[in-house]
Amino acid sequence: MTAEPVVAPRRVRLDGQRTRHQILDTAVRLATVEGLDGLSIGTLATATGISKSGVYAHFESKEDLQLATVDTARDLFIADVVAPALASEGIARLRALCESFLHFVERRTLPGGCFFAAAAAELGGRQGPLKARVAANQRDWMRLLTDAAEEAVRCGELLADTDVAMLVFELNALVVAANTAFLLHDDETPIARARAAVARVIMASVPSADAG
Amino acid sequence: MTAEPVVAPRRVRLDGQRTRHQILDTAVRLATVEGLDGLSIGTLATATGISKSGVYAHFESKEDLQLATVDTARDLFIADVVAPALASEGIARLRALCESFLHFVERRTLPGGCFFAAAAAELGGRQGPLKARVAANQRDWMRLLTDAAEEAVRCGELLADTDVAMLVFELNALVVAANTAFLLHDDETPIARARAAVARVIMASVPSADAG
Repeated sequence: MTAEPVVAPRRVRLDGQRTRHQILDTAVRLATVEGLDGLSIGTLATATGISKSGVYAHFESKEDLQLATVDTARDLFIADVVAPALASEGIARLRALCESFLHFVERRTLPGGCFFAAAAAELGGRQGPLKARVAANQRDWMRLLTDAAEEAVRCGELLADTDVAMLVFELNALVVAANTAFLLHDDETPIARARAAVARVIMASVPSADAG
Repeated sequence: MTAEPVVAPRRVRLDGQRTRHQILDTAVRLATVEGLDGLSIGTLATATGISKSGVYAHFESKEDLQLATVDTARDLFIADVVAPALASEGIARLRALCESFLHFVERRTLPGGCFFAAAAAELGGRQGPLKARVAANQRDWMRLLTDAAEEAVRCGELLADTDVAMLVFELNALVVAANTAFLLHDDETPIARARAAVARVIMASVPSADAG
């Protein structure tokens, strides 16, 4: 008995996983420019240099590829936007999440900006599992902002009568509008404007003794 | 000499214009769901019941069709959102423009909501004449809000030190976020939230004697 029968399949599996990751990383970038509809086995084969059959081996259907792309975008968003903000809590986390999002856009992490902003706009008028997956991710993002704001209210960093749902709606609106305008006009002004507006909107709910 | 040689070509031209309008009205609706990329001679032929060659006769290329679709969406936006607000001036016009936009979305005028919000998100990561046309329309919308706000400042309806660019950025962010969330979650709450936020954001810049 040699080691090969054990090692070989494992190496194949790892190579397969690496290839799948490579395809999906490319798919996330591509989808922010061409849309989730613009993803195809053919364009991904061209973009990754992997054969069409090689790409096809990893995904049963276009929808399977699109859903996996959404999940990969989620992982990237968590790693790049969410995780850095989780070191802080309450009002600091709320500010960090907004700043982290703006920084993600500003440094052009993805060529078409926020994946979920693009996907939400693309799928808004439709129905189906892909829209549901994007909507669920968007709810998770709003939940994250809401939890941070509620924690801030609980520990007195924000006024007890803060309308948290309204605050979170406004903060999300500001950072997403910055993403859209930054990309559409190739102009950083909207990022700076959103930064100032986020600070002011949060400050408006800070008890006056702290607001200084 | 009879009337026919004059009348016949004229009728043909009118029929041609009517067909072109019909194709473009369908294209605007379709583009809010399938994207400007999703427009094709084939899908438009199916959607309008006009033959492919009939559709093709009106547009030199896909880009020509897409640009004409943007222009048609502009006409619709002006008729449905802008025109009703032009009866008022200053702060009333600013409020009317925001309300008109929210009402346009809420009554599902187009199946995929605001054409320009969808197009801006679709084209954000690209370059070219189509993106430039959408960006120009978006600038016109911001200019319209800005002119109304500046007029409101001039006549003392808004505080002299109002940061108009910031105010307009916030108002646009709120109504566009309502459009996105309304469509993504099939929920009217974001519309109501944007309505309340728009009122509050404008009121924050109203001189305190009037704000009462």
